[in-house]
Amino acid sequence: MEMNIALLPGDGIGPEVIAQAVKVVKAVGQKFGHQITFKEGLVGACAIDATGDPYPDATHEICAASDAVLFGAIGDPKYDNDPKAKVRPEQGLLRMRQKLGLFANVRPTFTFPSLVHKSPLKLERVDGVDFVFFRELTGGVYFGEPRGRNEQGTKAFDTNVYSKEEIVRLARMGFEAAQKRRKLLTCVDKANVMATSRLWRETVQELAAEYPDVKVEYEFVDAVAMRLIQWPKAYDVLITENLFGDILTDEASVISGSMGLMPSASLGSKVKLFEPIHGSYPQAAGKDIANPLATVLSAAMMFEYAFDMKAEADAISDVVNLSLAEGYVTEDIADGGTAYKTSQVGDWLAAKILG
Amino acid sequence: MEMNIALLPGDGIGPEVIAQAVKVVKAVGQKFGHQITFKEGLVGACAIDATGDPYPDATHEICAASDAVLFGAIGDPKYDNDPKAKVRPEQGLLRMRQKLGLFANVRPTFTFPSLVHKSPLKLERVDGVDFVFFRELTGGVYFGEPRGRNEQGTKAFDTNVYSKEEIVRLARMGFEAAQKRRKLLTCVDKANVMATSRLWRETVQELAAEYPDVKVEYEFVDAVAMRLIQWPKAYDVLITENLFGDILTDEASVISGSMGLMPSASLGSKVKLFEPIHGSYPQAAGKDIANPLATVLSAAMMFEYAFDMKAEADAISDVVNLSLAEGYVTEDIADGGTAYKTSQVGDWLAAKILG
Ligand SMILES: CC(C)[C@H](C(=O)O)[C@@H](O)C(=O)O
Ligand SMILES: CC(C)[C@H](C(=O)O)[C@@H](O)C(=O)O
Repeated sequence: MEMNIALLPGDGIGPEVIAQAVKVVKAVGQKFGHQITFKEGLVGACAIDATGDPYPDATHEICAASDAVLFGAIGDPKYDNDPKAKVRPEQGLLRMRQKLGLFANVRPTFTFPSLVHKSPLKLERVDGVDFVFFRELTGGVYFGEPRGRNEQGTKAFDTNVYSKEEIVRLARMGFEAAQKRRKLLTCVDKANVMATSRLWRETVQELAAEYPDVKVEYEFVDAVAMRLIQWPKAYDVLITENLFGDILTDEASVISGSMGLMPSASLGSKVKLFEPIHGSYPQAAGKDIANPLATVLSAAMMFEYAFDMKAEADAISDVVNLSLAEGYVTEDIADGGTAYKTSQVGDWLAAKILG
Repeated sequence: MEMNIALLPGDGIGPEVIAQAVKVVKAVGQKFGHQITFKEGLVGACAIDATGDPYPDATHEICAASDAVLFGAIGDPKYDNDPKAKVRPEQGLLRMRQKLGLFANVRPTFTFPSLVHKSPLKLERVDGVDFVFFRELTGGVYFGEPRGRNEQGTKAFDTNVYSKEEIVRLARMGFEAAQKRRKLLTCVDKANVMATSRLWRETVQELAAEYPDVKVEYEFVDAVAMRLIQWPKAYDVLITENLFGDILTDEASVISGSMGLMPSASLGSKVKLFEPIHGSYPQAAGKDIANPLATVLSAAMMFEYAFDMKAEADAISDVVNLSLAEGYVTEDIADGGTAYKTSQVGDWLAAKILG
């Protein structure tokens, strides 16, 4: 099969981890006989530096013409503490999500036997945890209008908006995922306070009739923030709006003890995007020490979600598990054993796929 | 001194735990020679049942005329899953906060040596944790207008609004608390996305100049949701807006392993309110098994924050520590030892204060 993949390495360690994913994807292409073309685009702080725009049109055209996007990470400290900065790297990310119609962010949380001891939670609470968030990604307070300041600058406001259709399309993905998993769907909202949340709850209650095999639970966002720590194993599929999803998926990401390995997918109408959930770690950039496994596993998600190629996806997960089992890993998870370089881990994984 | 205290027991276990706090407050009054008058009001589901209003005018008058309010808990499952319900208990809570001007919710998180093993976090992560949230309580998306639906009911919206003054008065409380503690203030926002957050960050940056002895850090709400689990000991004082505070203080409440003991204060212009952070636990209501210690410790906070009576506050904390040390506690923390009834614990504490 022919596959066009857009590469957006971004900032910080982004380029280094994307380079390893590319090695692995090429190896999979060679082994399974796929014709893979890569096209690279600028995004984030590096795009601002080069063009003044964190998501230049040229990058959008590359993405829009691709079958899937592999994304690294964005963000640079020089843009962080300046509330008056006119252009911020994150704006590129948000514009990209909206223009590509990536309305669903899929974030699995699961544990690796060899890493679960790194979890901040006690073993019995977290061992075997396996849930997935479907976060709405192109609505809510991230894009609602009006937003801004009054004339004197003494008052600021944001608007949270959701339409029924936006909720329906996200919720359906959650229901369908639940049907293939443990058949439990948790709708996370703040229906005791927010009008948007009441529309979420009402809409999900209506849809539930179409999925009689799925048990639906409704929980307030504050309660979920607690229970994710107390009893994370109680969850299967969670659906929620953009801002709650931002907070809760990040909270969820640290409980497994293997943040450096957690992949994610952003799905939409046509193009699909895959990225590690970790950030751009500017401190580690250029040192060839960053852990590439989350990006490599994001490439596995790409084969499965964008191309429906389960065997290819499994080939990647298998070599990742092998690298963990044999300790061929970067310093963050080397646990006293030999620490390999980012590029060495990428070479090793690609060789194992081919060998 | 003469003290007028409004009692709002509320729903579920509220009346039972408030009754124990009253015993303890009376004992303190007797011991220290204070003239204490209690007046009781209805709030929450029980107020809806009795009057149709979750925060009746009569209750507001009692609170407004008091020096301090002791609050139990509100909420009843019969109001939970009905997104179209016209009157909800929570509306009473929100109206009360607004009408009494309770703009700052103070939520300490700390550990008790005898209970920290109950934390879902590993001991080394959480032992000795000691931070306090100042959550803005009368602004943001909780009260912003417009909010509601479009005519067809297919679209819903909420408005988040903050004025500079609202941010300043909350932030000052945080700065002042930090000065008396470890001198670290963390401003929690989402300044990379929200206009309100940028006003928060900008305002706090301006104020910081007046508190040169306080180190100020700015963190995104999603990052704090992670770090509260990873490195909770890194925090001292955190300030944030209403909705972020709702989510993060609940997340914080479970890490100590002693949720049933965590008190809180809501401060404002004149009246101050004190309440346990736990909910109304309808399942336990009327069984005389609920843990009254969070409410009793809220009464201790009342003596300190509302009446500036540190000795009285300490007298309460001391007997609570004694009850933990001697295992004179309710079943939730009895850990295999004898489980005492809610009312027995209250009697015991009051007797120890007097004895
Ligand atoms: C960088 C920021 C705008 C972004 C978000 O809030 O969506 C990030 O936190 C994420 O979750 O991808
Ligand atoms: C009941 C609800 C409206 C309330 C809130 O969101 O403020 C509660 O969660 C709290 O934190 O006191």
